[in-house]
Amino acid sequence: MNQDYIKPDNWSIIEEGFDIERVKSSESLFSIGNGAMGQRANFEENYSGETFQGSYIAGIYYPDKTKVGWWKNGYPKYFAKVLNAPNWIGIEIEVNGEAFDLHTCTKIADYRRELNMKEGWYNRSFVATLQNGTEVAVNIRRFLSLDLDEVGVINYEITPLNQDATIVYKPYIDAGVTNEDANWDEKFWEPLDVNQQENQAFVTAQTFKTHFKVTTFMQNSILENDNNLNLSPLATAKTSDKVQFTYEVAVAKGQKSSIQKLGGYTVSLNHENTQEAAEKVIQKALAIGYNQLLQNQIDAWAKIWEMSDITIDGDVKAQQGIRFNIFQLNQTYLGKDSRLNIGPKGFTGEKYGGSTYWDTEAYCIPFYMATKDQEVARNLLTYRYNQLDKAIENAEQNLGFKNGAALYPMVTMNGEECHNEWEITHEEIHRNGAIAFAIYNYYRFTGDYSYIPEKGLEVLIGIARFWHQRASFSTQKNQYMILGVTGPNEYENNINNNFYTNYIAKWCIDFANEQIQKVAIEFPKDHKRIIEKVKLSDAELQEWKKVASNMYFPKSEELGIYLQQDGFLDKELVRVKDLDKSQRPINQKWSWDRVLRSPYIKQADVLQGFYFFEDHFSIDELKRNFEFYESFTVHESSLSPCVHSIQAAKLDKMDMAYEFYLRTSRLDLDDYNKEVEEGCHITSMAGTWMSIVEGFGGMRVKNNRLHFTPKIPKEWKGYSFKINFRNQIVKVAVTASGSTFSVDGNEDLTINVNGKDTVVSPENALSI
Amino acid sequence: MNQDYIKPDNWSIIEEGFDIERVKSSESLFSIGNGAMGQRANFEENYSGETFQGSYIAGIYYPDKTKVGWWKNGYPKYFAKVLNAPNWIGIEIEVNGEAFDLHTCTKIADYRRELNMKEGWYNRSFVATLQNGTEVAVNIRRFLSLDLDEVGVINYEITPLNQDATIVYKPYIDAGVTNEDANWDEKFWEPLDVNQQENQAFVTAQTFKTHFKVTTFMQNSILENDNNLNLSPLATAKTSDKVQFTYEVAVAKGQKSSIQKLGGYTVSLNHENTQEAAEKVIQKALAIGYNQLLQNQIDAWAKIWEMSDITIDGDVKAQQGIRFNIFQLNQTYLGKDSRLNIGPKGFTGEKYGGSTYWDTEAYCIPFYMATKDQEVARNLLTYRYNQLDKAIENAEQNLGFKNGAALYPMVTMNGEECHNEWEITHEEIHRNGAIAFAIYNYYRFTGDYSYIPEKGLEVLIGIARFWHQRASFSTQKNQYMILGVTGPNEYENNINNNFYTNYIAKWCIDFANEQIQKVAIEFPKDHKRIIEKVKLSDAELQEWKKVASNMYFPKSEELGIYLQQDGFLDKELVRVKDLDKSQRPINQKWSWDRVLRSPYIKQADVLQGFYFFEDHFSIDELKRNFEFYESFTVHESSLSPCVHSIQAAKLDKMDMAYEFYLRTSRLDLDDYNKEVEEGCHITSMAGTWMSIVEGFGGMRVKNNRLHFTPKIPKEWKGYSFKINFRNQIVKVAVTASGSTFSVDGNEDLTINVNGKDTVVSPENALSI
Repeated sequence: MNQDYIKPDNWSIIEEGFDIERVKSSESLFSIGNGAMGQRANFEENYSGETFQGSYIAGIYYPDKTKVGWWKNGYPKYFAKVLNAPNWIGIEIEVNGEAFDLHTCTKIADYRRELNMKEGWYNRSFVATLQNGTEVAVNIRRFLSLDLDEVGVINYEITPLNQDATIVYKPYIDAGVTNEDANWDEKFWEPLDVNQQENQAFVTAQTFKTHFKVTTFMQNSILENDNNLNLSPLATAKTSDKVQFTYEVAVAKGQKSSIQKLGGYTVSLNHENTQEAAEKVIQKALAIGYNQLLQNQIDAWAKIWEMSDITIDGDVKAQQGIRFNIFQLNQTYLGKDSRLNIGPKGFTGEKYGGSTYWDTEAYCIPFYMATKDQEVARNLLTYRYNQLDKAIENAEQNLGFKNGAALYPMVTMNGEECHNEWEITHEEIHRNGAIAFAIYNYYRFTGDYSYIPEKGLEVLIGIARFWHQRASFSTQKNQYMILGVTGPNEYENNINNNFYTNYIAKWCIDFANEQIQKVAIEFPKDHKRIIEKVKLSDAELQEWKKVASNMYFPKSEELGIYLQQDGFLDKELVRVKDLDKSQRPINQKWSWDRVLRSPYIKQADVLQGFYFFEDHFSIDELKRNFEFYESFTVHESSLSPCVHSIQAAKLDKMDMAYEFYLRTSRLDLDDYNKEVEEGCHITSMAGTWMSIVEGFGGMRVKNNRLHFTPKIPKEWKGYSFKINFRNQIVKVAVTASGSTFSVDGNEDLTINVNGKDTVVSPENALSI
Repeated sequence: MNQDYIKPDNWSIIEEGFDIERVKSSESLFSIGNGAMGQRANFEENYSGETFQGSYIAGIYYPDKTKVGWWKNGYPKYFAKVLNAPNWIGIEIEVNGEAFDLHTCTKIADYRRELNMKEGWYNRSFVATLQNGTEVAVNIRRFLSLDLDEVGVINYEITPLNQDATIVYKPYIDAGVTNEDANWDEKFWEPLDVNQQENQAFVTAQTFKTHFKVTTFMQNSILENDNNLNLSPLATAKTSDKVQFTYEVAVAKGQKSSIQKLGGYTVSLNHENTQEAAEKVIQKALAIGYNQLLQNQIDAWAKIWEMSDITIDGDVKAQQGIRFNIFQLNQTYLGKDSRLNIGPKGFTGEKYGGSTYWDTEAYCIPFYMATKDQEVARNLLTYRYNQLDKAIENAEQNLGFKNGAALYPMVTMNGEECHNEWEITHEEIHRNGAIAFAIYNYYRFTGDYSYIPEKGLEVLIGIARFWHQRASFSTQKNQYMILGVTGPNEYENNINNNFYTNYIAKWCIDFANEQIQKVAIEFPKDHKRIIEKVKLSDAELQEWKKVASNMYFPKSEELGIYLQQDGFLDKELVRVKDLDKSQRPINQKWSWDRVLRSPYIKQADVLQGFYFFEDHFSIDELKRNFEFYESFTVHESSLSPCVHSIQAAKLDKMDMAYEFYLRTSRLDLDDYNKEVEEGCHITSMAGTWMSIVEGFGGMRVKNNRLHFTPKIPKEWKGYSFKINFRNQIVKVAVTASGSTFSVDGNEDLTINVNGKDTVVSPENALSI
């Protein structure tokens, strides 16, 4: 059974009732982030039950020493781990002499968590009875400011209900934290300096090896009935990596006492002197004040929703699901900084080293392109451009490639590989293709060609060079092949001629070639600069073309399908529907060899190629390949259902499309994979967005024009979404009886609906 | 450059001159063992330079917690590591108040190590000048008794040369040892008891988890000019895991002082009360006395050589090489105990978890069959029989097989898997075939059928069941296939239809079937017992036959060869001779993906099949396959050259055969792979023996008759070897001008030489 404790609500994630079994799951689900930092929904006060502590700072990582069973040449010696950052939320509390701890209270009533996605804050409230009999009503609100993205705010209120109470607040900051998945149980933080002034304190620490300097800070105010008491700490305790204040207040029964704690991080990525920066940002935040900070937060989230909201009418769980996905994506990445990327767990957990997978290019960029200014997607492309040298180094030093061939890492933080299984690190090379495709996709969607002559072309050349060298010639077949790869379907390893890989390799070379020609004509200066820099000759281009024009693609004429790889039809082709349910999920029930020799597919592979390059194939081809491969697909990757949902919708298999949509949109809320306590699946959330917009809405960009073929699952009354298309906001609302298209601003926009071009003007919405 | 410091000598391994760079290599090369225990040639006295300490007890292991990068279902959680055992050889020495340490002496002259293989002892001698100016001549002899195989003996002699000397001897035993390749830096030994009486001391410790109890003991005597001074220790120091005595003697210039230290292990595998056993064995050894113990050692080794020696005339390095190999094999395993096996590093290092690979069946059994009584090979077979239940459990629990199918582990100590790479653990399943083949080979060689009805048949059934279930049906090819394997050539992973695997799988099923029929007729009681025990039905047998009779074998009609696996000819087929030398060894120069997609072969794969089943193929087929595959073989496994040497000799490519022989016979002495400091390659040493006997000598057993086709490399004047064929000792001596065959005992023996049957009688050697 999946979990099902989150209350359905259009705008909030709500948990009611305290259950120690759910603490870690809720810590993930109620995580908050602001693109620059984020944290799990750990309790502020001490909790002696099971918990998974996590606070994360974007761009701050630690190169952990690689752990393997058997070393293989080309493995990275170190790789970047998502780093648990110093704790700034902690507030130890004593009530009438007893340490307050939900795990030891005799009674907890009215326990409620709410993550208000509309306004961007997290609230926890309850009435607890301590062992000493004191009954207190507690309400805590926390948010990470979007405006001042180095600052988080906690407003922690306690009202003694049945007697007067002496309340001791002991807020602290602590750099003595560790990572749960550290390879060698090492400490990652070296404390440098601890100091305090009045109600403020600062712990400066740096990461070992990478030497990122971070000042973690706090500023505390004690209030009674919302009036600041202007108290100073009674006492201060300092160690080399922790500082803690003590405040004590006497609170009459029924009166509300509270502590407002500002906290956060200033980091050497952005500041010379991090403590000075911390002092300044505290000053700024204090000047704005708690209430205005909260109001600013609400306003900032309103702006985000204004552009990216999707409404679903008649299905509150689906509505809650899609908003949770959009909310989490925005908490994780806002696109302001090209040094950052979209980690698979965002700020909700520390699993998986590194922050960047091909997920970014294949799944996330479409979402960010359509719901933000184009600068955001451009920053994501620039991230890869900035790491091109490392990708060239990777191909050269680890794989023996020459001449500027670039292999981007499977997982990375700073451009270096963060993965160490040969079948992935060394063989799942299709990732290079998605990075080139994203450049194409960005231009297709935004119409902004400037990125290619400025930066993109160098990336395309490095990637084309990789594919050219990675292909090998089979004298037997007289064609070029790509041997020994792992495709998107990671339930096959070291296979030959993965259709998707061969196809995108050929496409990368062709596309790079075309762009070289185009830049030569339209941006001759850039062309000259780049060709000289990368030392590309016509002779080399001819060699590329030989490979691209004579690439081998495995297929079955009989079935009219491409083969996922050589020999696929030799498998025992038992369909998923005929597989005993007790055997699923196969990745938990079967040994790896059995998974590998089975025909079962983890996520779209041939169909990923059909998704990227849909116009290269007929609808009949799509149908044959979809029906064949989907029947063997177990969807054991969170990235699987969305591509299938989009294609099912295209093939008018709306029941299937809807079923796939459901699997992805509430994956974490309903904890399908029983692992949400490790963190949420952030990047697949973009796939959910794609399922609606590209799947049900049929949104495409072709020839500089938006296309739609709206469909609606029979379970819904209606849905709507918006697209930022080249600075015009297009709103699409779909019901069973028809669709409405409207556009903001002053200019008309020609769109194509169901194959027909139509003009939408700002004054008149178009109904079809 | 390979090392080349070992002095050529027919019977001894000799090092001259002290070089700190060679200490660890020599510790491996001068290792001693007696089948029950063994140790690296570590110094007795303290040494502050770099050293790799190792002492090992047969059958004593520790299940270390598995270390992996990414966990896969079916990996063993723990696996047995070769365990560094308590140290009993240590003797700290002080000369005139200075701790004696070769690393701090001001001068070392006449340094010489000798491993006398003929007599089975190790000697180290030198003249050293201490920092205090005292010059001493030192001579140490050490051996591990073959007769009393729990006892080792050290005779440590010191003669002050330039002044009188006060010499302090501090012999100790120490259970506070660790393993260099422990996965988690844990301690493996728990000390239980330390005590001493007079000149004897005992440290009893047990291994964590496995709870093997071991008493490590010592008994010390101090002598002057070979007269026992009957000294008692001046002092005794004890900790929880160590005990050390202090003796002090005043030695006049030119007089010889010595300490004789007996030491060793008594283990709970063999004794209820290990300390009592230790006391008894000390008593026994003292009663025999040092001189007689040494004489017994010489006699025991003479017996071993009497049966297993190979002489080579005209090539002292080749002679030294083959004797070193035969000596090490006998140091490692003597076949007395079916709980033991032949570890790949023997008692010379701790690398590789587990002690048993398919090396035992494929490479070692022929050596032991031909040079020992048949009981020895039978013990090796019994070892696998005793682990059949674990092999069934392995197939069932880790791989999901049913019904008594058995998959033997890739590496094991106690029957459980000790390896954790999916491509090996889960996919290198051909090992099962060699285990069945060894049963056949034993019967073929010894004529002793009794093993099959007694024990072997159950193993054969378990293995046949495995292959039956592991094969899958390809509707496309209408044949059975074996998908997703790693063959003997580990430079390919997760391939489909490895010819060798498919071939031996079919053979295993056929052979099991034949033996079931034969046992049914000849041993009906055993047949009934076994069939009832394993619940084997005729219906199941019919299913087996379907698979065996319709197995798919990949081949190229055009080239007239079997394909190593599906798709082999799609590779870029650049031969090894055309590969730039700078790229070798490819396993050190290339990333793993590049190795995998290359055509390069680590060790015989198709050709291993041609070796096992040579009579199934014509000489033309062998020639075509050999010439094709050998040209892609890089021989980067120590097990590679021997099979190629045998086949080259068969194909009259004597120069190649000789070249391959050279690579294997001095692999460790000349340290070809620059890793001898980690220990010697014990199992491949049996391959060297095979190269001479089966390769140059052409020895085969067919239809219960020995066959020979003697050839000789042009570099040699002559060579000779002996074969224990069914209790008749056949001696074969070959020179360029002819061969001589003689037989011991009273009975004539018909042998086949160069295709002709001939009678050899004990009175008349046969010269051809």
